[in-house]
Amino acid sequence: MNIGMIGLGRMGGHMAQRLREGGHAVVGYDSSPQSDRDVDSMEALVKALSSPRVVWVMVPAGEPTDSVIETLAQLLDAEDLVVDGGNTRYADDTRHARYLDQRGIRFMDCGVSGGVWGAERGYAVMAGGSLEDFERVKPVLDALKPSGPDGLVLAGGVGAGHYAKMVHNAIEYGMMQALGEGFATMAKSPCITNPAAVMTSWKSGSVVSSWLLDLLANAFEDDPTLSGMPPVANESGEAKWMVESALELGVPTPVTAAALHMQQMSRGGADDILRAISTMRAQFGGHVTKV
Amino acid sequence: MNIGMIGLGRMGGHMAQRLREGGHAVVGYDSSPQSDRDVDSMEALVKALSSPRVVWVMVPAGEPTDSVIETLAQLLDAEDLVVDGGNTRYADDTRHARYLDQRGIRFMDCGVSGGVWGAERGYAVMAGGSLEDFERVKPVLDALKPSGPDGLVLAGGVGAGHYAKMVHNAIEYGMMQALGEGFATMAKSPCITNPAAVMTSWKSGSVVSSWLLDLLANAFEDDPTLSGMPPVANESGEAKWMVESALELGVPTPVTAAALHMQQMSRGGADDILRAISTMRAQFGGHVTKV
Amino acid sequence: MNIGMIGLGRMGGHMAQRLREGGHAVVGYDSSPQSDRDVDSMEALVKALSSPRVVWVMVPAGEPTDSVIETLAQLLDAEDLVVDGGNTRYADDTRHARYLDQRGIRFMDCGVSGGVWGAERGYAVMAGGSLEDFERVKPVLDALKPSGPDGLVLAGGVGAGHYAKMVHNAIEYGMMQALGEGFATMAKSPCITNPAAVMTSWKSGSVVSSWLLDLLANAFEDDPTLSGMPPVANESGEAKWMVESALELGVPTPVTAAALHMQQMSRGGADDILRAISTMRAQFGGHVTKV
Amino acid sequence: MNIGMIGLGRMGGHMAQRLREGGHAVVGYDSSPQSDRDVDSMEALVKALSSPRVVWVMVPAGEPTDSVIETLAQLLDAEDLVVDGGNTRYADDTRHARYLDQRGIRFMDCGVSGGVWGAERGYAVMAGGSLEDFERVKPVLDALKPSGPDGLVLAGGVGAGHYAKMVHNAIEYGMMQALGEGFATMAKSPCITNPAAVMTSWKSGSVVSSWLLDLLANAFEDDPTLSGMPPVANESGEAKWMVESALELGVPTPVTAAALHMQQMSRGGADDILRAISTMRAQFGGHVTKV
Repeated sequence: MNIGMIGLGRMGGHMAQRLREGGHAVVGYDSSPQSDRDVDSMEALVKALSSPRVVWVMVPAGEPTDSVIETLAQLLDAEDLVVDGGNTRYADDTRHARYLDQRGIRFMDCGVSGGVWGAERGYAVMAGGSLEDFERVKPVLDALKPSGPDGLVLAGGVGAGHYAKMVHNAIEYGMMQALGEGFATMAKSPCITNPAAVMTSWKSGSVVSSWLLDLLANAFEDDPTLSGMPPVANESGEAKWMVESALELGVPTPVTAAALHMQQMSRGGADDILRAISTMRAQFGGHVTKV
Repeated sequence: MNIGMIGLGRMGGHMAQRLREGGHAVVGYDSSPQSDRDVDSMEALVKALSSPRVVWVMVPAGEPTDSVIETLAQLLDAEDLVVDGGNTRYADDTRHARYLDQRGIRFMDCGVSGGVWGAERGYAVMAGGSLEDFERVKPVLDALKPSGPDGLVLAGGVGAGHYAKMVHNAIEYGMMQALGEGFATMAKSPCITNPAAVMTSWKSGSVVSSWLLDLLANAFEDDPTLSGMPPVANESGEAKWMVESALELGVPTPVTAAALHMQQMSRGGADDILRAISTMRAQFGGHVTKV
Repeated sequence: MNIGMIGLGRMGGHMAQRLREGGHAVVGYDSSPQSDRDVDSMEALVKALSSPRVVWVMVPAGEPTDSVIETLAQLLDAEDLVVDGGNTRYADDTRHARYLDQRGIRFMDCGVSGGVWGAERGYAVMAGGSLEDFERVKPVLDALKPSGPDGLVLAGGVGAGHYAKMVHNAIEYGMMQALGEGFATMAKSPCITNPAAVMTSWKSGSVVSSWLLDLLANAFEDDPTLSGMPPVANESGEAKWMVESALELGVPTPVTAAALHMQQMSRGGADDILRAISTMRAQFGGHVTKV
Repeated sequence: MNIGMIGLGRMGGHMAQRLREGGHAVVGYDSSPQSDRDVDSMEALVKALSSPRVVWVMVPAGEPTDSVIETLAQLLDAEDLVVDGGNTRYADDTRHARYLDQRGIRFMDCGVSGGVWGAERGYAVMAGGSLEDFERVKPVLDALKPSGPDGLVLAGGVGAGHYAKMVHNAIEYGMMQALGEGFATMAKSPCITNPAAVMTSWKSGSVVSSWLLDLLANAFEDDPTLSGMPPVANESGEAKWMVESALELGVPTPVTAAALHMQQMSRGGADDILRAISTMRAQFGGHVTKV
């Protein structure tokens, strides 16, 4: 089918390519003239699509997505469909849907997982919206997803796609932290000769077999001690939103929180805590912390 | 090759079967007459093997394993090899190795993962001991492991196999907890229509694709809300030993600890903590906690 | 000075009493006719005060506070001052301040700590607002606070009083959990004959001397094992808001989060997590969790 | 009474002074000639005491304490009493008691809290041993403890004093971390003008009133932002032993563990975890972590 793609960065560009390989006619736009865009404005993109139009928005969450949706609200017609495939916070989807609905424009949110591997391996797609809109855009979703029975779900109404993606990313954080704790413990233990070899062996037959382990094993081929990587990690919004949503729902998520906290610590987030602890210890014990 | 298997329970029985399918001659013994044993005593098992013998011990960790190893020390000859494939604490392996070494008997430890699926899928095997002993028993290990390049590693000297398995199980705890937090949050969230369908969709294309997710998806086919399962989990020793070892090594393992703590809480381990908190709140605020 | 008190429950009632003992003329109103109220409507309360009026609102956070502030906006005059002494979320203070400011009415927020002991011991008061409003209401705050140099602070602008109280309550959660973990560990340890006696001894000379420990020691006099208390704890909003605010600020708060998570678990919040874990273990290991 | 004190460092020196002020005759020995020692050998110390002797050992835990106890076993007579007042792991007390018991020498362990403030404020003393030995040494313990009813307890048999001190220190870790999280969150929050002033105000009337808060408030007088302190904290053994003991007892201690983990992280303990996380993110997302 005929689809507009706004945002041709790492994710949007690869997705456009996969859609074309799947037989769809993609009109791509990106604000950067250096991009591989087909048209040089959103107006041109809208004109190039046949009605009722489907426009996939794949730009950074927050202000950029807000701005694109506001522009599309001016350009599109009733019954056109906007799909937000970015990393928008689920709570913002409702706002976007209402805004577009004032003009009769339809809205869906799609969480998309797969990173740079998705172009080849297929993307896991989690959609939120009405069943009618889901069916309408399903040929596109089918082209994005991996072959086989899984990899695509209508998770619920508007917002559910991003909610599911948020949960997915939080699980990812927890799994990465679990694998990291195992690696770090073996790296320090005099018992284990080669932690990289141990973890690589788990790719097959073990209970922890997983795509994340496969990726780690890939990296071990070049750098078995990972000494080339910096000991810092950048948190993204999803795990934070997950912890907040779970707190409100009364669900304890200690593992998600712990993974997030460690990432914040790696960026100095706990420095004032440690200063306070050092201060109290210095006060009561005459301990002076040596740096 | 020719091998004795002591312990024909769920793990040992399936392993013996897989070894026979792999062309090995297994002499099996179990203390239970109801088992499918080939001989009715350890003496008979030892007599049935050709020298230098290899005996695989697959009985519960702690006293049962201690006891079998003490008996074998009396029955075996110098250069015979004992392999402990159970869930022994790594620190005990050194003790066992020294004990057997007094008689010139060789020792290896093997952590084995794979559960009831291993008979069919192959077991992940992590070995600890000398390279010489590893080579000697490698035909057996190759039969246990899955086909393909991975699934077997010599992790280090004596104790390293169980240490690696301990780390593996701790990672497993963290991953299960991460998946559980995601499921529970979606189960409580009004956004998500069907958490089981969302998680099942992740089997393909997602970052959290993993064997544990596959197992969960299997279970969802029969019981999408998991309401038939009890909200309790039994901790095993490995995650505890991992946390303890990491503490000594100075490696923080908040995710492993959190997973373990939740399992202990599900068994009432935190009841006195909660009583103390309720008490303080009642004292300062006149809050009375209603049950 | 002359002050109106809306809400004569456990906190408001005791505070009115302490204010009167401090020489202030308090006009009290409560929606309940069974209360010890001086007037039977907010209109009457407003009429009974001299201008510019000061009205202290001490009702439950959320809708009740919203509703009282909306009513006061209709009844008060410009330059009158509303003080919200309840447990309102700090983010709501800005909204309340703006709403009242449309009529020229001033607003302050005051976090008040001290529980049922405050009437006698004095309340710790954390104020948010302008220095001018703080000075105006200071005679009242001085009467509420304990004698001595501490117990009162202007923490910042509007919202800062409730923010400081939120942080205070989160610290309280962490401290209670720390004391609880110590009690529970000693209660299970065969080493310790009488955990209550040990903790009571810490009231003097120890590093953990604290008011919370004093309260616990009080309770131990009647029930050294705390067996009369239920093993559940009710979370209040403050620790949740603290974790959320800290997440946004990039500050890891693992102890606050852990305390909160345990309280949520005691109310069954983790049941679905545990069901998922039991399910995976049953799938891979043939483990059946016995209840 | 007459008592020998071995170890005249920060703790032992102050304790000897407090004992003398309490009317006891202290014979002090320290291995360092620069110390304020009364005798220059343990032999001389033993000779200077009247039988049955009481010798208080106040040297670092581990090898130094082991060594002193081994020497004392050679020098003392049956019915003499050794008191270990250091930070020995509770499990080692049993070993020491058995060792001395071979010669008929009595043993008690005493956990002592109070830091450099103890000389003036008095020390909280937690004793482990027999009631008979406790009564014998009670005049000394009474001189060490603060005046008033609390500050001294016989916690149980041999090992209980150090166990109670271990729990005490773990609670201290949790409380410091809770206070630290509150400080750090306020320090980053734009709402709060002066976190030091807020926390100082809590000294009176608040629920978090505590000696640790008093110490922090002391330090704020000189450095309200604590910017002069390094953002690192040194873990001591007690919290580790507490987490390990609680794990074995089935008691979850997430707050103690979290406090400990943060201290380990501040010393780089999590670097390999973070390297592994960065590696996986780089692999799946093309994310490159910028330092």
